[in-house]
Amino acid sequence: MDKLKVSLLGATGMVGQKMVRLLSSHPYIELTKVSASPGKIGKRYIEAVKWVEGGEVPEQARDLKIVSTEPEDHKDVDVVLSALPNELAEGIELKLVREGITVVSNASPFRMDPEVPLINPEVNWDHLKLLETQRQKRGWKGLLVKNPNCTAAIMSMPIKPLLKYRLNHMIITTLQAVSGAGYNGLSFMSITNNVIPFIKGEEEKIPKESGKMLGTLVNDSIRHVELKALVTSTRVPVKVGHMGVMYLFFDSPVNAEEVKRDLSSFKSLPQERNLPTAPKTPIRVLEGEDRPQPEIDVSAERGMAISVGRVKNENGALRMVVLGDNLVRGAAGITILTLEVMKELGYV
Amino acid sequence: MDKLKVSLLGATGMVGQKMVRLLSSHPYIELTKVSASPGKIGKRYIEAVKWVEGGEVPEQARDLKIVSTEPEDHKDVDVVLSALPNELAEGIELKLVREGITVVSNASPFRMDPEVPLINPEVNWDHLKLLETQRQKRGWKGLLVKNPNCTAAIMSMPIKPLLKYRLNHMIITTLQAVSGAGYNGLSFMSITNNVIPFIKGEEEKIPKESGKMLGTLVNDSIRHVELKALVTSTRVPVKVGHMGVMYLFFDSPVNAEEVKRDLSSFKSLPQERNLPTAPKTPIRVLEGEDRPQPEIDVSAERGMAISVGRVKNENGALRMVVLGDNLVRGAAGITILTLEVMKELGYV
Amino acid sequence: MDKLKVSLLGATGMVGQKMVRLLSSHPYIELTKVSASPGKIGKRYIEAVKWVEGGEVPEQARDLKIVSTEPEDHKDVDVVLSALPNELAEGIELKLVREGITVVSNASPFRMDPEVPLINPEVNWDHLKLLETQRQKRGWKGLLVKNPNCTAAIMSMPIKPLLKYRLNHMIITTLQAVSGAGYNGLSFMSITNNVIPFIKGEEEKIPKESGKMLGTLVNDSIRHVELKALVTSTRVPVKVGHMGVMYLFFDSPVNAEEVKRDLSSFKSLPQERNLPTAPKTPIRVLEGEDRPQPEIDVSAERGMAISVGRVKNENGALRMVVLGDNLVRGAAGITILTLEVMKELGYV
Amino acid sequence: MDKLKVSLLGATGMVGQKMVRLLSSHPYIELTKVSASPGKIGKRYIEAVKWVEGGEVPEQARDLKIVSTEPEDHKDVDVVLSALPNELAEGIELKLVREGITVVSNASPFRMDPEVPLINPEVNWDHLKLLETQRQKRGWKGLLVKNPNCTAAIMSMPIKPLLKYRLNHMIITTLQAVSGAGYNGLSFMSITNNVIPFIKGEEEKIPKESGKMLGTLVNDSIRHVELKALVTSTRVPVKVGHMGVMYLFFDSPVNAEEVKRDLSSFKSLPQERNLPTAPKTPIRVLEGEDRPQPEIDVSAERGMAISVGRVKNENGALRMVVLGDNLVRGAAGITILTLEVMKELGYV
Repeated sequence: MDKLKVSLLGATGMVGQKMVRLLSSHPYIELTKVSASPGKIGKRYIEAVKWVEGGEVPEQARDLKIVSTEPEDHKDVDVVLSALPNELAEGIELKLVREGITVVSNASPFRMDPEVPLINPEVNWDHLKLLETQRQKRGWKGLLVKNPNCTAAIMSMPIKPLLKYRLNHMIITTLQAVSGAGYNGLSFMSITNNVIPFIKGEEEKIPKESGKMLGTLVNDSIRHVELKALVTSTRVPVKVGHMGVMYLFFDSPVNAEEVKRDLSSFKSLPQERNLPTAPKTPIRVLEGEDRPQPEIDVSAERGMAISVGRVKNENGALRMVVLGDNLVRGAAGITILTLEVMKELGYV
Repeated sequence: MDKLKVSLLGATGMVGQKMVRLLSSHPYIELTKVSASPGKIGKRYIEAVKWVEGGEVPEQARDLKIVSTEPEDHKDVDVVLSALPNELAEGIELKLVREGITVVSNASPFRMDPEVPLINPEVNWDHLKLLETQRQKRGWKGLLVKNPNCTAAIMSMPIKPLLKYRLNHMIITTLQAVSGAGYNGLSFMSITNNVIPFIKGEEEKIPKESGKMLGTLVNDSIRHVELKALVTSTRVPVKVGHMGVMYLFFDSPVNAEEVKRDLSSFKSLPQERNLPTAPKTPIRVLEGEDRPQPEIDVSAERGMAISVGRVKNENGALRMVVLGDNLVRGAAGITILTLEVMKELGYV
Repeated sequence: MDKLKVSLLGATGMVGQKMVRLLSSHPYIELTKVSASPGKIGKRYIEAVKWVEGGEVPEQARDLKIVSTEPEDHKDVDVVLSALPNELAEGIELKLVREGITVVSNASPFRMDPEVPLINPEVNWDHLKLLETQRQKRGWKGLLVKNPNCTAAIMSMPIKPLLKYRLNHMIITTLQAVSGAGYNGLSFMSITNNVIPFIKGEEEKIPKESGKMLGTLVNDSIRHVELKALVTSTRVPVKVGHMGVMYLFFDSPVNAEEVKRDLSSFKSLPQERNLPTAPKTPIRVLEGEDRPQPEIDVSAERGMAISVGRVKNENGALRMVVLGDNLVRGAAGITILTLEVMKELGYV
Repeated sequence: MDKLKVSLLGATGMVGQKMVRLLSSHPYIELTKVSASPGKIGKRYIEAVKWVEGGEVPEQARDLKIVSTEPEDHKDVDVVLSALPNELAEGIELKLVREGITVVSNASPFRMDPEVPLINPEVNWDHLKLLETQRQKRGWKGLLVKNPNCTAAIMSMPIKPLLKYRLNHMIITTLQAVSGAGYNGLSFMSITNNVIPFIKGEEEKIPKESGKMLGTLVNDSIRHVELKALVTSTRVPVKVGHMGVMYLFFDSPVNAEEVKRDLSSFKSLPQERNLPTAPKTPIRVLEGEDRPQPEIDVSAERGMAISVGRVKNENGALRMVVLGDNLVRGAAGITILTLEVMKELGYV
């Protein structure tokens, strides 16, 4: 198979580094270009990056020259992956798409755009069909595909196989890792030995983005699922791994054992096609009463699996504790998996 | 005023040290005896203790000789305070009470005994009247008073002034500090950079003990409030400060602004009588969107105040984030405040 | 006694907050003005500050209006204290001093100026006499007094009483707290579960500033002590408390027990005059083999004492482990103590 | 090649788990037996272990039944690896060796025995020849090989290639990770936000064990190198990675650039024979002024490389900061590499 050539925008950030790592051993996606902030253009990647991923900068990326984010610098790749900061992404990505480049992006702009698929591969790979509508209605020469907010990526996963029961409302408290705010997002003094019970914008994003991803493609648009959710987001002194304590209320009672089987047996197209980045078991159901834990469970299936524990039915509510790797399952990993699905389905 | 002489059982533990500190500047309670594990008997306190409270061992305690927990070693004090480990407390405390000694204790045995008052002073100081029943029915020569579990002590406080609205049920997720498990309760390797979403026994204690404390003394017994609560307890890498994200559902809607006024204006007997250990404002209502935080708020009013933030009414639920010092408000401080109330009301 | 009125520059920073706290209960220094960055001018202190000191903003400071750093805003105070960032301090402080204002400052510019006293009160209060030279030679209408770098403030203290032995050279490894880099100086991701074995500029400052402080005033200038020191500075994931593992080599062997007596009996003018902020025992010698520790020892004497442990003589080298509170002993506290000495000696 | 069958003693501890992980993908060493504390005998490994290594228990180990440490349970393996706690190791290992079993062990007893090789493979693989003396003099039917203390394993490595310069003395301050004390060795409360400047026994072991490893086999015994070293060991709140700030004094001056070349070009038998667990570059010399750091460098070459930074010549002293993975390079990894060397040289 011919390799798929990709550029990576925001390649020196924390999510960018994670993508560089994941792509370094990819069977058919080849990283051929990297871009970073203007001051770094022209430098070799190894000179431009403050590598924090652990170990060494992968061989394939070391000597790549940093290029700009301008379309002319990305003409000869098949796809551009974007790990840009939210505040820079809108203009840059739009320009690329208009010039005919296909962009798969982690950044927040356009996520709720009705003609842009918001993809969490196992949950809604079929929403990629929206790209046809996008092509017709927007007049962009390229394609734009988005990945969700990290918490929404993690929390939406175990809801998917439970949608068959009629979900009435949810109450969620999250305990989110510091890396979710970026490498320099929180100072040591502010969060060590502390909990900050607020994350700007997060409590709204989770139900909104999940509602879109869990929705159905009807004709040429997404019919969102209406998720009534009360969410409180907290930041805890943990480096990687977003946890959610979820209470789900269904119209009629569900059986916890059955729910566990629904979760652990959940498979989707990425598993059926055996895609390289797909976890074999997207949702791990743990029986240990003190699980999941970030330090033990976050790296399961190289960070691509969601872990669910403490599943219990109590007074009509289904309680579960959900954990996922916010940098892999919540960002770098699903971007790559999304591209694998796109290739599988012929979009690239 | 004559000083009240007290013994302290479990004086070298973390809660014991906190009591030693608090008593060192007390206007009328004087620590005159300390006991610890048998191997330490006869040593001076300063030799027996591995002091972790910060600063120096208070002058008054330094040279106290460690005595046993046997009644004969506590004949000449007015009251015995107990910071014993739960597993040792039952036998020791019972023996003391039977021998005519008054014991105020933090340990868990007897907390749910119908003839033992479980006191969180601002919430239910009036339950001390149960001591009369205790005296009649149990035939003990002394008195036994209990303080609640640390989380129940903290979470019951803001519920008290809201009981006038008809509370239907609650959903609570706690983020609890490591000191709640004792100084050696959790290893660094197990909890650093981690969250453990389970604390043995905790999820049951919170509604059970709160239900007793929030109950009413009717004739000679406590009529518990039935608290329907779904609780998930998690341990977070924080030294001191238990946080709870609480969702309260009332029979009819409440007004968040009114709730905040109810909370911040809450006062009780300890405030009215201006007791030395009483916080001036038992419940601090914070307006900052990212509060309360352990590192900033836990020491308010020397650890005796509860902090409440993020009060919001949403879809019929009242959400609030509650924080308290688990070692002071949740343990050492309320024991001392309980004794102050007992003295005020003539029980000692 | 008439109160001494002071302004505080940089009042909203971490060291500034510490000074606000310390001054809030000061017997004769009264904080009457606070300044902060231009965008905050006109606001009340409580609105302008992101208070991280724990507990509440002290009553005396809450309603002070933020003023500029311009001389006209500080005409009616006796002294200006400065907790300005190093990069802003030079111009601002110079302007104030030229306009006739006396400035006592923590910021680094001018520390090595031969006509500016660099004061660590117990070590070299007598260098204040250099102010007379300053007045004559510089033509400033006001006075400028500096406090040292936090590590130099801590490490120079136990060297002072040992200067009588002939010190040949030193090898020092420091383990420094994150607060030394400022509240936002290091991100959680960068330093948690990590050690960074480098702090910019620090390894040079320690011997240089200590050499000046430990020097002698001869006629109208300071004769520095030449300290041959090899220093490696590391940053460790600790909030407050700089530690140094010091190996001192003397021309002739010293006796460890004698050294301990020299250290623990060390007193200076601040102790003799019983100044309010002076620690009673400036150097605590600890016998516990695992001391000093930041969590236990840093707050001794409200952060003003240095703790020394593990004193040992081995192969001709004297080893000791030294610890001090970098925010109090290393910054806010010595500024205030310096002012107390200045008042005592009639400089203000 | 026939696989080498091994047993693992202490298989459920932290170092044991690390060995299980490393052996799970080993080309020719096959883990066939595991032993643990008596209460676990008969259980499957997956039931007996509290897995903290991250990810899943490797397939090969999951269903192994826990056996005792008695010789009859280890008759059919080629070698027994031991990750036993120090206090249990002596009797158990001796019994096995006497019964004809070859034991390669991490535990401390016998490390300084003159007839037991203490192996850090790159440093002194040739000391294995001492096994011939051992066989003759001790009358054991099996062989006993030891690995050093974790800190000695790490610090001795960069000294090896510098022995050609005449080393006079050293001053070392270590900053050691909590895992060095075992999974439950230090409580969260005791070491978080803290430094403990003392580790029992450690300061003596480093020069003593290094002196043996760096020594020369002369006839049938090891002539130790006499290392004059002043060592201060501290514990820092880091999970994995022991750091040492080392000052080396040589009889005549050395050149820092030359030293860096000596270190980075250092190779030994494990590299020459390309052994599976050997790091390609045993000593990484880092040029970044703020390196090495545990979070970035400890996992280099899967934890088998030592990282050295801040190499500098100053006043006749060579300063370097050394870092290694205390669980891999300092324990599990060198045991396996030692066995690889033994196989290569025909000892097993």
